[in-house]
Amino acid sequence: MSDQINKVVLAYSGGLDTSVILKWLQQEYSAEVVTFTADLGQGEELEPAREKALLLGIKPENIFIDDLREEFVRDYVFPMMRANAVYEGTYLLGTSIARPLIAKRQIEIANKMGADAVAHGATGKGNDQVRFELGYYALNPDIKVIAPWREWDLTSRTKLIEFAEKHQIPISKDKRGEAPFSTDANMLHTSSEGRVLEDPWEEVPDYVYSRTVNPEDAPDSAETITIDFERGDGVALNGEAMSPATLLEALNEMGRRHGIGRLDLVENRFVGMKSRGMYETPGGTIYALAHRGIEQLTLDRGAAHLKDELAPRYAELVYNGFWFSPEREMLQAAVDHSQAKVSGTVRLKLYKGQAIVTGRKSPNSLYSEKVVTFEDDQGAYDQRDAAGFIKLNALRLRLLGRRDG
Amino acid sequence: MSDQINKVVLAYSGGLDTSVILKWLQQEYSAEVVTFTADLGQGEELEPAREKALLLGIKPENIFIDDLREEFVRDYVFPMMRANAVYEGTYLLGTSIARPLIAKRQIEIANKMGADAVAHGATGKGNDQVRFELGYYALNPDIKVIAPWREWDLTSRTKLIEFAEKHQIPISKDKRGEAPFSTDANMLHTSSEGRVLEDPWEEVPDYVYSRTVNPEDAPDSAETITIDFERGDGVALNGEAMSPATLLEALNEMGRRHGIGRLDLVENRFVGMKSRGMYETPGGTIYALAHRGIEQLTLDRGAAHLKDELAPRYAELVYNGFWFSPEREMLQAAVDHSQAKVSGTVRLKLYKGQAIVTGRKSPNSLYSEKVVTFEDDQGAYDQRDAAGFIKLNALRLRLLGRRDG
Amino acid sequence: MSDQINKVVLAYSGGLDTSVILKWLQQEYSAEVVTFTADLGQGEELEPAREKALLLGIKPENIFIDDLREEFVRDYVFPMMRANAVYEGTYLLGTSIARPLIAKRQIEIANKMGADAVAHGATGKGNDQVRFELGYYALNPDIKVIAPWREWDLTSRTKLIEFAEKHQIPISKDKRGEAPFSTDANMLHTSSEGRVLEDPWEEVPDYVYSRTVNPEDAPDSAETITIDFERGDGVALNGEAMSPATLLEALNEMGRRHGIGRLDLVENRFVGMKSRGMYETPGGTIYALAHRGIEQLTLDRGAAHLKDELAPRYAELVYNGFWFSPEREMLQAAVDHSQAKVSGTVRLKLYKGQAIVTGRKSPNSLYSEKVVTFEDDQGAYDQRDAAGFIKLNALRLRLLGRRDG
Amino acid sequence: MSDQINKVVLAYSGGLDTSVILKWLQQEYSAEVVTFTADLGQGEELEPAREKALLLGIKPENIFIDDLREEFVRDYVFPMMRANAVYEGTYLLGTSIARPLIAKRQIEIANKMGADAVAHGATGKGNDQVRFELGYYALNPDIKVIAPWREWDLTSRTKLIEFAEKHQIPISKDKRGEAPFSTDANMLHTSSEGRVLEDPWEEVPDYVYSRTVNPEDAPDSAETITIDFERGDGVALNGEAMSPATLLEALNEMGRRHGIGRLDLVENRFVGMKSRGMYETPGGTIYALAHRGIEQLTLDRGAAHLKDELAPRYAELVYNGFWFSPEREMLQAAVDHSQAKVSGTVRLKLYKGQAIVTGRKSPNSLYSEKVVTFEDDQGAYDQRDAAGFIKLNALRLRLLGRRDG
Repeated sequence: MSDQINKVVLAYSGGLDTSVILKWLQQEYSAEVVTFTADLGQGEELEPAREKALLLGIKPENIFIDDLREEFVRDYVFPMMRANAVYEGTYLLGTSIARPLIAKRQIEIANKMGADAVAHGATGKGNDQVRFELGYYALNPDIKVIAPWREWDLTSRTKLIEFAEKHQIPISKDKRGEAPFSTDANMLHTSSEGRVLEDPWEEVPDYVYSRTVNPEDAPDSAETITIDFERGDGVALNGEAMSPATLLEALNEMGRRHGIGRLDLVENRFVGMKSRGMYETPGGTIYALAHRGIEQLTLDRGAAHLKDELAPRYAELVYNGFWFSPEREMLQAAVDHSQAKVSGTVRLKLYKGQAIVTGRKSPNSLYSEKVVTFEDDQGAYDQRDAAGFIKLNALRLRLLGRRDG
Repeated sequence: MSDQINKVVLAYSGGLDTSVILKWLQQEYSAEVVTFTADLGQGEELEPAREKALLLGIKPENIFIDDLREEFVRDYVFPMMRANAVYEGTYLLGTSIARPLIAKRQIEIANKMGADAVAHGATGKGNDQVRFELGYYALNPDIKVIAPWREWDLTSRTKLIEFAEKHQIPISKDKRGEAPFSTDANMLHTSSEGRVLEDPWEEVPDYVYSRTVNPEDAPDSAETITIDFERGDGVALNGEAMSPATLLEALNEMGRRHGIGRLDLVENRFVGMKSRGMYETPGGTIYALAHRGIEQLTLDRGAAHLKDELAPRYAELVYNGFWFSPEREMLQAAVDHSQAKVSGTVRLKLYKGQAIVTGRKSPNSLYSEKVVTFEDDQGAYDQRDAAGFIKLNALRLRLLGRRDG
Repeated sequence: MSDQINKVVLAYSGGLDTSVILKWLQQEYSAEVVTFTADLGQGEELEPAREKALLLGIKPENIFIDDLREEFVRDYVFPMMRANAVYEGTYLLGTSIARPLIAKRQIEIANKMGADAVAHGATGKGNDQVRFELGYYALNPDIKVIAPWREWDLTSRTKLIEFAEKHQIPISKDKRGEAPFSTDANMLHTSSEGRVLEDPWEEVPDYVYSRTVNPEDAPDSAETITIDFERGDGVALNGEAMSPATLLEALNEMGRRHGIGRLDLVENRFVGMKSRGMYETPGGTIYALAHRGIEQLTLDRGAAHLKDELAPRYAELVYNGFWFSPEREMLQAAVDHSQAKVSGTVRLKLYKGQAIVTGRKSPNSLYSEKVVTFEDDQGAYDQRDAAGFIKLNALRLRLLGRRDG
Repeated sequence: MSDQINKVVLAYSGGLDTSVILKWLQQEYSAEVVTFTADLGQGEELEPAREKALLLGIKPENIFIDDLREEFVRDYVFPMMRANAVYEGTYLLGTSIARPLIAKRQIEIANKMGADAVAHGATGKGNDQVRFELGYYALNPDIKVIAPWREWDLTSRTKLIEFAEKHQIPISKDKRGEAPFSTDANMLHTSSEGRVLEDPWEEVPDYVYSRTVNPEDAPDSAETITIDFERGDGVALNGEAMSPATLLEALNEMGRRHGIGRLDLVENRFVGMKSRGMYETPGGTIYALAHRGIEQLTLDRGAAHLKDELAPRYAELVYNGFWFSPEREMLQAAVDHSQAKVSGTVRLKLYKGQAIVTGRKSPNSLYSEKVVTFEDDQGAYDQRDAAGFIKLNALRLRLLGRRDG
């Protein structure tokens, strides 16, 4: 903490914790604080954050509130979806993918405002601190980073509240006690973890879910939808053209209604521990399925299998915070090369917590009824070729069998 | 076809097609035919196959009918499930995994009976011919292989029926016309493909499903179950110890009732074409989820991520028919090494087509509430360590940023 | 052979074998033959091929002789070198990489000349037939392919000579008997295999080597050279700017003189068998080392390690003939993305069969003396960060140790 | 440093640096010091270390000197060689592989002696601190670790010498000044780095090499040797059976004489920076080549290629210090499974800095002259099979070509 800081850009939500951080930065570092509040579709109004920042003495020109929703979906969520990235077989990376964008914008503001530091409100046990800071350092190697949760002595709720009271930071009633769990939200998902979720054997209580209805309360009849893709990205819902963020929002609403995208998991954090979380990814879950559906029809086997082998690595990089790394960009280059013909329409059925693909069509389809048919294929495929194909694939196994058999 | 064959072991189902093959082998090769019928839990009675073989002139001592259900689940399905093998992101390999066992038993019978050839009823366009024959050749490099569908001129349904009638092969009424689709079944799954399924845009008709109820007709209330695992394999259901096959059968019944495990997909065959299929894997779908659930708690991150990276390769090998290959065995050795502590209990909820994990516990849990907690962890984890961790992970990105920024 | 062929483009070397094929095509298919002879730097004059084709009745406008040397190095060898592709840990893919270019040009000529077929002189046991034909089919899915060695009955040298004599094909003296081994050459390498090389325990006889001196006969003093790279490709030798082919030729001469690039190996062919070969890759061996040398300085670790993991797959694809495949192109896209800053100079020493890197420098160097120094680094690196880095990397191992220890 | 330490096991070489550490531990922690000195074939006498420890006040029963040479080669070097592990394409991991064994023995001694801490003399910028400490923590999660170079203020040579003089630590003359480079040695290799090597463009000075003669001074005639392998491990040299360590020592002497195994490289450290080093691995370089040679003959293609794809990951794990990790053990299980038949004899030629394989034979050879021969193979391989093999491999490319062409 000995470093001299002049101006710091804080990722500011307007909530109690980052308000305390704001004040603490002013006090501890005697630094001018710039606040940055991003709309990533977390479903909260942002103007109260401006009011609160003003109240805490931030100069109007030092308050940044940006609507990043389209950029988020277009440049972060969709590229990741092209890669079919899934962490540990189940998690669609909803929190992970938002961090690099926040970091990028924060650095842009720091550069513009001549700030020499950035700060965030992530704790010292989680992945988010890593994701923020790897982003900061990649985009500005000389930036100073302040992570108050790793530095200060406000280590209990009580001390935090005391600090807030002492500095006239408004505290909403429900923030006085310990929250039964903590959440993070953006347009792609809401995550919940901590306290009531800490025992991985205990079922997630109903009140933790906020983005989806309970499947048992979802409509009793299925809904059928279509999504159109162009070059690997969604472009229309039920035939209506939509921007990336509009499309994802619309899918979120559908997913919410049908109880789709709930996930209860124990995951491995980059910092070395296991944690238990509950994620709701309503629209993203539908979208990911649809993307696989259109790839089934339009992607060559060689490309598809290479993608499947690279996907866990890609997901690990995003999860660990290496979005702005050469290796993630290399994988993206490979993935994007494969998507040139991934266009067409997928039909899905939504029902009681589940989305399933029920049909797909494409002008770029590689599926050939003529070749695959059980009927007479009029010479499109010579079955005798299979004999030679098998014989040569078997040759090494036969040589092995002769030696070892 | 110039090869002289003395005795041939035929994979015989007792159905029309393999009965025609039986007769054709006798006629075309003047060979003594040994029939082998396996019970892999396909849900058909096998004694009629014996009657039919006798009727077609097979000597009683040349008729083999084996119950392979326990061996199938224990030595094929469970090892594959340990690997979390999923083909092209979605398919649980139900057909693929049965072929090597049939091939192995067929070769054992050939060796015992002094047969110089084996035959199967798979077509020349599919994967199964490859899986059968790679198995045959790996286990007996000098065996002769007869694949009638690639050789004969019975290329239409009409010709096949004519041949059957000419040779007094009984034809059940429903086999006279063209079937609207073809199926394959074993304890792990039922697959359906062809004709009415050939257009990947058309929804799978209801009458194609045979192993699961329509989720919309499934019970309106959820069912909660537990599965116990020991060293990566399921050993008990709802607290009751069960053999592998018994466990899978019980899960199949549960899955059937709740409409779980339906999959409509377009896949890439090893022989180079895309095909559209519909799979029902009721118990396997539940089991696979549960296995991931217990791994989440008991598997180290390094092991888990290595498994995730190897799984697509493993799945591809099984799909392509390379079960009896050194590389599949190498991957199995790696996977099995990881499963020593994968023991414990997983709780799942089954509802309207979906299975979800709602809890997991284990005496071998690596999850540490003490480390992960938001509360005071009493020194179990020093948050300041994270600063150094991030700094060194960022170092190369900062050097890059200085060069390229 | 029932297919009707009107016009066929033959990959024609002018040698005995392809001259026999030429005649056989005329006779067997009554087809008009177009010859295509490529200069890939194999070190033979090409005009005699024209004379011979004319002599065998080919119309002048049906004779194509192309100098593809620059295209070969620029668009095939260099992209492969960017990937550090090495097959089975040792082989630099000299034969493999030439085939797709020949196939591509052959198809271009076929399209231009309205030919409906292409033909090549590769045998039915080797990899080259696969590489040629996968190239043909990828670039023209409807082309007919004639592989005489798999079709005809000229299965012995004697029959081939008889056929040649019968059709007045000139036979040079040294072609009358069986060659003690067979070779293939292009600018990247010369391969030798067969007959005297068939026993993998027997040392390769001296007379088999044609492109390099015996290291024991190489100069007694070392030669030091430099190669300059721009964006991953060699652009200058000893400070003198050169085109790709000129650079490789110059390195070949240096490598030849110092006995560099000999390789005796047993490899696994795509068609399922092992073969023993001897390869001479003088310039390519030097170039590959130099490329790694400049990457060491300019490539980030994440990019470098990803490349190392992808390289065996890339090499396998090239070896197996899948140059024109989506998955090779995807890997190329990833590789090429990594090469943007791979520029600088590498110094090597050549001596008695060996090339070693002795220095490298670059304006894009990521090596930082300031950070790495044993001397005082003035705060560039805080050694205390390492403690946290290690602690968090160790956390999962400690949790494991507590469970299993 | 606030932690109370009672007894600490120090990895002690007897040199100046670890002697200073010894004294510093006594003083700073008031701890009882146990010294552990390992013979890993570094080529130094160890008894002087005992004398020096006694001189510095260590109790005789607290001095451990162990000959670990056989264990080192048998349980660390050979298993790694089975995996063909090479870091960043060139480095044979000579330093990396020694660290886990030292860590393991240190923990064993700590457990036996009731010590609560271990200490090592690695600096805060290098990989070795990570390798030591990951080993410590994996084997004893509760051990305390002291890394004096990260803690103390003896940050310059001058201060270190002053401390030594003040505490009567003997200082040999050549240690008074700054060494021009630093080295580490064991039976597998000697590494050199720092100061005179810090500019990666400057050639390594002759005087830095200590384990090999300059190739230009090596004998003018080649030496031919044979190595016998059993199940993947070397067992005999020139027909004479040898223990692992004896074999490696003998190869080291041969390598030394012929100037084999020198490597000048820039590598990527785990801690995030690039460093330049010079390695001499005389015997290991020969051994690694020989192992690949015997695998060429005895390993199936599927196994070999899987090994090639896994090798970079395995090497990275060893380099980064994750020897005692589940994922390294999983990879080892896969590798070891592949080695059951890797037995036979390899012949190599050693000459002027280079080792090359010139022949290999094995009772388990998978090479079949009968199949591969250019002569009549009497039906061992049907060339017409290749047509079908190619056709089906091409099918997907043709479907692509029809769509995109």
